[in-house]
Amino acid sequence: MTEHRALENIVVLDMTRVVAGPFCGAMLGDLGATVIKIEVPGRGDDARAYGPYINEESLYYSNLNRNKHGVTLNLKSEKGKELFLRLVKKADIVIENFRPGVMERLGLGYDELKKVNPQIIYGEISGFGSYGPYRDRPGYDIIAQAMGGLMSVTGQAGNPPTRVGSAIGDILGGLNLSIGVLAAINERNITGEGQKVDISLVDCVVASLEQAVQRYIVSEEVPKRIGNSYQSIAPYDTYQAADGYVVIGCGNQKMYEKLCNEILKKPELTEDERFLTIPLRVKNQAQMKEYIEAWTSKQSVNEIVETLLGKGIPSSPIFDLKDIINDEHISRAREMIVHSHHPVMGDIILNGNPVKMTASKTDIRKASPTLGEDNSEVYGGFLGLSDKEIKELYRDGVI
Amino acid sequence: MTEHRALENIVVLDMTRVVAGPFCGAMLGDLGATVIKIEVPGRGDDARAYGPYINEESLYYSNLNRNKHGVTLNLKSEKGKELFLRLVKKADIVIENFRPGVMERLGLGYDELKKVNPQIIYGEISGFGSYGPYRDRPGYDIIAQAMGGLMSVTGQAGNPPTRVGSAIGDILGGLNLSIGVLAAINERNITGEGQKVDISLVDCVVASLEQAVQRYIVSEEVPKRIGNSYQSIAPYDTYQAADGYVVIGCGNQKMYEKLCNEILKKPELTEDERFLTIPLRVKNQAQMKEYIEAWTSKQSVNEIVETLLGKGIPSSPIFDLKDIINDEHISRAREMIVHSHHPVMGDIILNGNPVKMTASKTDIRKASPTLGEDNSEVYGGFLGLSDKEIKELYRDGVI
Repeated sequence: MTEHRALENIVVLDMTRVVAGPFCGAMLGDLGATVIKIEVPGRGDDARAYGPYINEESLYYSNLNRNKHGVTLNLKSEKGKELFLRLVKKADIVIENFRPGVMERLGLGYDELKKVNPQIIYGEISGFGSYGPYRDRPGYDIIAQAMGGLMSVTGQAGNPPTRVGSAIGDILGGLNLSIGVLAAINERNITGEGQKVDISLVDCVVASLEQAVQRYIVSEEVPKRIGNSYQSIAPYDTYQAADGYVVIGCGNQKMYEKLCNEILKKPELTEDERFLTIPLRVKNQAQMKEYIEAWTSKQSVNEIVETLLGKGIPSSPIFDLKDIINDEHISRAREMIVHSHHPVMGDIILNGNPVKMTASKTDIRKASPTLGEDNSEVYGGFLGLSDKEIKELYRDGVI
Repeated sequence: MTEHRALENIVVLDMTRVVAGPFCGAMLGDLGATVIKIEVPGRGDDARAYGPYINEESLYYSNLNRNKHGVTLNLKSEKGKELFLRLVKKADIVIENFRPGVMERLGLGYDELKKVNPQIIYGEISGFGSYGPYRDRPGYDIIAQAMGGLMSVTGQAGNPPTRVGSAIGDILGGLNLSIGVLAAINERNITGEGQKVDISLVDCVVASLEQAVQRYIVSEEVPKRIGNSYQSIAPYDTYQAADGYVVIGCGNQKMYEKLCNEILKKPELTEDERFLTIPLRVKNQAQMKEYIEAWTSKQSVNEIVETLLGKGIPSSPIFDLKDIINDEHISRAREMIVHSHHPVMGDIILNGNPVKMTASKTDIRKASPTLGEDNSEVYGGFLGLSDKEIKELYRDGVI
């Protein structure tokens, strides 16, 4: 079977910056799309200024812009707009994460683009979305985590609201935008027309809150920070082991009974009226935890995990980055840590793509571009401009 | 224009339980797919036992299973398998989150399904994926957050590793599975063949770590918990206001200079060698924070946000669930809190879908099914069984 990828037929113009939009472009690229990243001449994506660095190139940028062809383009110049519209004619998807209204003010909003290409799918991502009272507010991941409610429910009890330690609002935004544009591709196959997909980081975070929304309405109590426990399942928490913390989760009655009978050797707990059902165990989880820690605190994390997995009870250690990068399963078997090579940085490692497909490859084929690296290939090869024309574009500051 | 939805042509068999898989099914349903949720007769999805409850129905389950037709089916019976294969013939996508190998042992693995329908797309989601040394380990969200490294970087400095306060590993899994099956739909339009998409919750969490992976390799220091600050941008944190915490984020030099000149009225900071570049501001962010809090600590959160937004500097309050549900923008304009009606629970609220599309609706059209609620419609209407045959299926415990 020849090697192929799921989105080989798709051309994406990626005008995004920082994390959320670039993550979407990288996802589509990993899945095989031809992604052309468009940056401001001389400056580029803000994320080129974010560490960590190697040889003065941003590895931060590199992870989010692998599998992209990089061009520069000044969209404020008439010639730049014209070139952009020529690219739009040959593309399937445009993604951008300017503040709402920026593309319209450039004369390059979706309504203009669909005039030159009615099939174009336009994906935009912003802090608050393209409509609604807050549409003009600037948005970053930390703002989405804050206003989307995630910080209010993350953290140890009594602690301040806590930011998730990665740009999870941006990641959620990039994933939801990927879903939106792929759904629009499906619909385009039926209607023959593109459309606009409008993603707000805050919306994405709110959607990720799952049961916290329902809990507030039912209980009329605002969900608070409760450490590592969960308001819908117990036992389901971290527990003190002799050498650290261990995770144990019993999501159904069978697992819970096995834990009591075969591990804690306390069959009476399965008939204890404080713990009869999942909601009762959630309510009385502090007492439940005492029984469990009486057992876990005397053993190492590894011993506990091995014992519990042997009985089919979900359990795990807590990994840090070193553990992950050296892990046989995560890093190697699942290829979630990918060794790559960058022309300026040399050997680097990137995060793997979690979408594994049996017939299509999801892989990293190209390092992130240096600023304007692929100008000749894209403007020459893809758009068919002559060397002379490309030289003039450089001279005039268009690219 | 007639009302339409992006995935109207797609039929999904959703055999998933708990959160990750159901979230994917709900996403595809919100986007217009016909989703048939298949549950074990008499028991159903484990999440039916998770609170919050209204009238003994789980609102937890309801949020994750809106827009689905619910049927029961005993896949261990021969008749059940036969019915399942008849459904597969008429479906585009099957999703499941059993432990790897369960469907194969039932004789219903992807290799069997593609014999009856070579176009079928098979999406599976599990804690660790369908291959690799940990494939047989049970996985829950908390395990994915723990082994995927997210807990190791979330929390206040000096605190234990901290679980994100929603099932974010599951949500990431559901989103990535949605992307995978939609990418496979695109490829199927070209090749005419389906394939299997294999999602691991742990993989999804690792992919969401973004720069933490690169940071470890460059610095050889394991990224630790650093509260609400970020290792790649500063100022970008929560700051003490007179009445709580406020978020401020300056992602580029221009915003930073505006903060110093126009807000803090300390133009000297823009030339202070400790703060000249983003990496320097990250390194010296404790000192930077003192300057900022000297200003923020004297005002209310609302005053600070208003002042900063007036100057174009990203800032926000930290919302809890009550704030979100009552917010004009999030709850109403963006429809992220959706009022719905359930036949048993009555009026309920569900999380909205963040994928907003201009030509297609993404909406909640149907409440979650009670167990087996749509047996007649699906087995009768969709598969064409007679009332007599359906009665026999009930009698024999097949449905």
